[in-house]
Amino acid sequence: MSFDPSTLVYDANGLIPCIAQQEGTGEVLMMAWMNAESVARTLGTGRVTYWSRSRQAFWVKGESSGHVQELVDLRVDCDRDCLLAVVRQTGPACHTNRRSCFYTSVVGEETELMAPMV
Amino acid sequence: MSFDPSTLVYDANGLIPCIAQQEGTGEVLMMAWMNAESVARTLGTGRVTYWSRSRQAFWVKGESSGHVQELVDLRVDCDRDCLLAVVRQTGPACHTNRRSCFYTSVVGEETELMAPMV
Repeated sequence: MSFDPSTLVYDANGLIPCIAQQEGTGEVLMMAWMNAESVARTLGTGRVTYWSRSRQAFWVKGESSGHVQELVDLRVDCDRDCLLAVVRQTGPACHTNRRSCFYTSVVGEETELMAPMV
Repeated sequence: MSFDPSTLVYDANGLIPCIAQQEGTGEVLMMAWMNAESVARTLGTGRVTYWSRSRQAFWVKGESSGHVQELVDLRVDCDRDCLLAVVRQTGPACHTNRRSCFYTSVVGEETELMAPMV
């Protein structure tokens, strides 16, 4: 791996937001956070690995649920302070068992757009 | 407008990240920040309006450049701490004149995936 994660711009907590997008469909699945070591592990293993702010621990997506994210591409934005992970998502990305975490529209009344996956 | 922006979860600076995605193609264009009043203005006007952290001011996307984002849908994630704006983007979304801010791949060596728009 030749990319150096320390060249990214992290917030005061040493974190950078990472958007996960399904390859092919373009569906936005979720947004979570990474630190420099998460970025390195994601690139090194090909398994998307976030930093859990609540657990203060590495979070290999799908490690317990099986709903893994296989890395296809990792992109950085113009300011180097946000990442876009293009992934192959197995099953639901959301802990509510929906495909995407963005299942609620708030234009006008709140509306649920997506049922949990069976 | 019946949705109450104060029901969202903001960070210590009163901000929430908002991902902009092109309607139809699913292309992820950019990520920027909103405060509660930005969310209200975006929903009220149909023009995506961020909060500029550098200028500490409202940022009606495209107000000076003409590269506006017309709101199609605004979605909130399961934790209510991230937004997804589905938009109709006029021209480039990025200040570098690319369609998307995510024009750099960092898998292996850094690679530019996208040329500036003419």
